[in-house]
Amino acid sequence: MISGTLAGSNYDAWYTCFVQPKPIASRVRDLNPSPTLAITARAATMRASGLDVISFAAGEPDFRTPLPIIEAAHEAMLAGFTKYTSGSGIMELREVVADKFRRENGIETSADRVVITCGAKHALVNAILTLVEPGDEVIIIAPYWMSYSEQVMLAGGIPVLVQCTPESGFVPDPQEVAAAVTPKTKAMMICSPNNPTGAVWPKQVIQEIAQIASTNGIWLISDEVYEKLIYEGVHYSPAGLDPEFADCTITIGSCSKTFAMTGWRIGYMTGPKHVMTKIACTQDTISHPTSFAQKAAIKAFEMGDSFIQEVLPEFRTRRDLMHSLVNQIPGVSASLPQGAFYVMANVSNLLSGKCSTVDELAEILLQEAHVALIPGSVFSAKGFLRLSYATNREQIERGIGRMNEALQRLTV
Amino acid sequence: MISGTLAGSNYDAWYTCFVQPKPIASRVRDLNPSPTLAITARAATMRASGLDVISFAAGEPDFRTPLPIIEAAHEAMLAGFTKYTSGSGIMELREVVADKFRRENGIETSADRVVITCGAKHALVNAILTLVEPGDEVIIIAPYWMSYSEQVMLAGGIPVLVQCTPESGFVPDPQEVAAAVTPKTKAMMICSPNNPTGAVWPKQVIQEIAQIASTNGIWLISDEVYEKLIYEGVHYSPAGLDPEFADCTITIGSCSKTFAMTGWRIGYMTGPKHVMTKIACTQDTISHPTSFAQKAAIKAFEMGDSFIQEVLPEFRTRRDLMHSLVNQIPGVSASLPQGAFYVMANVSNLLSGKCSTVDELAEILLQEAHVALIPGSVFSAKGFLRLSYATNREQIERGIGRMNEALQRLTV
Repeated sequence: MISGTLAGSNYDAWYTCFVQPKPIASRVRDLNPSPTLAITARAATMRASGLDVISFAAGEPDFRTPLPIIEAAHEAMLAGFTKYTSGSGIMELREVVADKFRRENGIETSADRVVITCGAKHALVNAILTLVEPGDEVIIIAPYWMSYSEQVMLAGGIPVLVQCTPESGFVPDPQEVAAAVTPKTKAMMICSPNNPTGAVWPKQVIQEIAQIASTNGIWLISDEVYEKLIYEGVHYSPAGLDPEFADCTITIGSCSKTFAMTGWRIGYMTGPKHVMTKIACTQDTISHPTSFAQKAAIKAFEMGDSFIQEVLPEFRTRRDLMHSLVNQIPGVSASLPQGAFYVMANVSNLLSGKCSTVDELAEILLQEAHVALIPGSVFSAKGFLRLSYATNREQIERGIGRMNEALQRLTV
Repeated sequence: MISGTLAGSNYDAWYTCFVQPKPIASRVRDLNPSPTLAITARAATMRASGLDVISFAAGEPDFRTPLPIIEAAHEAMLAGFTKYTSGSGIMELREVVADKFRRENGIETSADRVVITCGAKHALVNAILTLVEPGDEVIIIAPYWMSYSEQVMLAGGIPVLVQCTPESGFVPDPQEVAAAVTPKTKAMMICSPNNPTGAVWPKQVIQEIAQIASTNGIWLISDEVYEKLIYEGVHYSPAGLDPEFADCTITIGSCSKTFAMTGWRIGYMTGPKHVMTKIACTQDTISHPTSFAQKAAIKAFEMGDSFIQEVLPEFRTRRDLMHSLVNQIPGVSASLPQGAFYVMANVSNLLSGKCSTVDELAEILLQEAHVALIPGSVFSAKGFLRLSYATNREQIERGIGRMNEALQRLTV
């Protein structure tokens, strides 16, 4: 086939006589680019062009990776630790993570049941590809991080959403979860503290959901990357609540949010031995994390909670500030999130003929107010905007101020 | 379900009254751990226990990553470049790679058609997951890197091997390739310079195979990670030979072998716009490469061929040394490889009742001679052992010496 475009009426007839490469796989036909990464990148591009863009889009701490972690990576590089590691990650880090799971999450595990991944996203897709057969249903508690449903589709599975409401503080109703179970349900994806809502689910809710999974032979995939970012409430790992739950749960964590290491791409996961053995094989077909980033992660765990305890009061102050400012915008409301670093602003009262969706609203705010944020539609939270407060107070004040002005103009 | 093992005759009856988590997906049931990574890791463990193990197993240069590349990563980290990047990698690196493809490979591409991946393995699995439907056939030219077939199985596809023989210098016969095409053939995976054989395929063979792909609407996935490791012959990218071929080819490269950056996990890929757009979505569901490793890769490309030109004479000397020593072992023969850093030793004459497979032979050599190498069975090359000469001359001499002795004992 000759590439390029030919003008003229005979082009189509000419073109179709050549063989086209066969179509792509159906599993990817409905996949979309990550909107959070795309909006963050667009904001960065606008900023690079000289515009003063304030971003509430990013799902990552604005703090820098602590220096000792950087230096541990540098030392490892200089020492020649720049080669392949074993597919599931270096044993030393797997031991450290197993120890962390035992101590902090109450999960009885060992290094041979831990896989180190290229970020939590990679851990999630490892689990989904290993468990989900084409046609299998996967229950996702919504609002949810969009990659969940994309990953399920990548495996040919069917995402089944169970929607939480703002009235219940975005905490799922276990009865509704149970009602969504069918004979085709293979797995369930949960996330507490939650992205995007900031909800920290109570122990009893986690327990009841884990019981539903266990009773029905359903795999529970528990995304716990925000476990350390809690202002009220306590984090519970379902696999740590009962050995019965541990038998059907894949627990996933990450260095990203806890140690400000998003770009390092170090996540980790554990679960029952037989499934972790297969997850290791799945990972072997994809990639393993950067060698010296694994060494740096060991340093990070050695430093323990020192970094997070340093930044948590600041995150709390920002949360309170953003929550209060958002609620001062006429027509906008937000409940106080207990964890993570997001405020979900209910803007449904502002949607009208002029601007009827949160996608349009987010676009207007980016174009006119130079404020980047993520429309709730992305998370199955129509009528909401997700605002990340992983940015400094001055930016929060200026950004919400600009938002307020733009929304006033819009609703006049 | 209560975990743990209970002794006693009632255990099975007791156990089965509890619900087991549902089975894993069929796509992973036949997946195996990467044997090359496993053997390399075993050799490392034996060495750590004090044994003098000589490894010919590794598929990576023994040289350290050049210091300027390390320092570029360190600078990026210190400058706070430790955050998420856009899903397909940073635009600056995508531009550099597009430029490299145009200049060196003759492939007309642009940054928006380049995706930076967590190593070439990740690039390959991106392509397979994006193209291959369950039940699709994928032609793999064998001997081949084992991950190819595992990746095809991960997508639910069916690997169809076309075997090359030592008699033809492990160069495929295009007629045999054509004969393997069926209406179900979706893609073809090729690799020249080849791992494990070291064969560098002539231009005409690449041209004929690309023509078969193009004529039949089959996707050609061209793994070119060894493109710079050539002692005789010239590297040709199929996508650079004809725009017609470029329309059905995904070209994959890596910083791993060219810049001694295996552990950094930086690969890259290009192809027609419409498929690269979907591959970017697939990658968005998995992970993106480490942020500052991408900055380091830019530095690596800036340095151009300086590193590879420095080490290539040494690799050539080692190749000649290993080739000559292997051929001095009674009953063993090897042809002179033109590229990569592997010698394929034909040991079929040594296989007998005492030790009838190359797997057993490799195990004996590891246990008794403390020489780690990869049995050819892993690559669909029964009767062969793959010996990597990405190690120093002294190790090559001692290692082949030990192999010789152990094989003598075996065949007495």
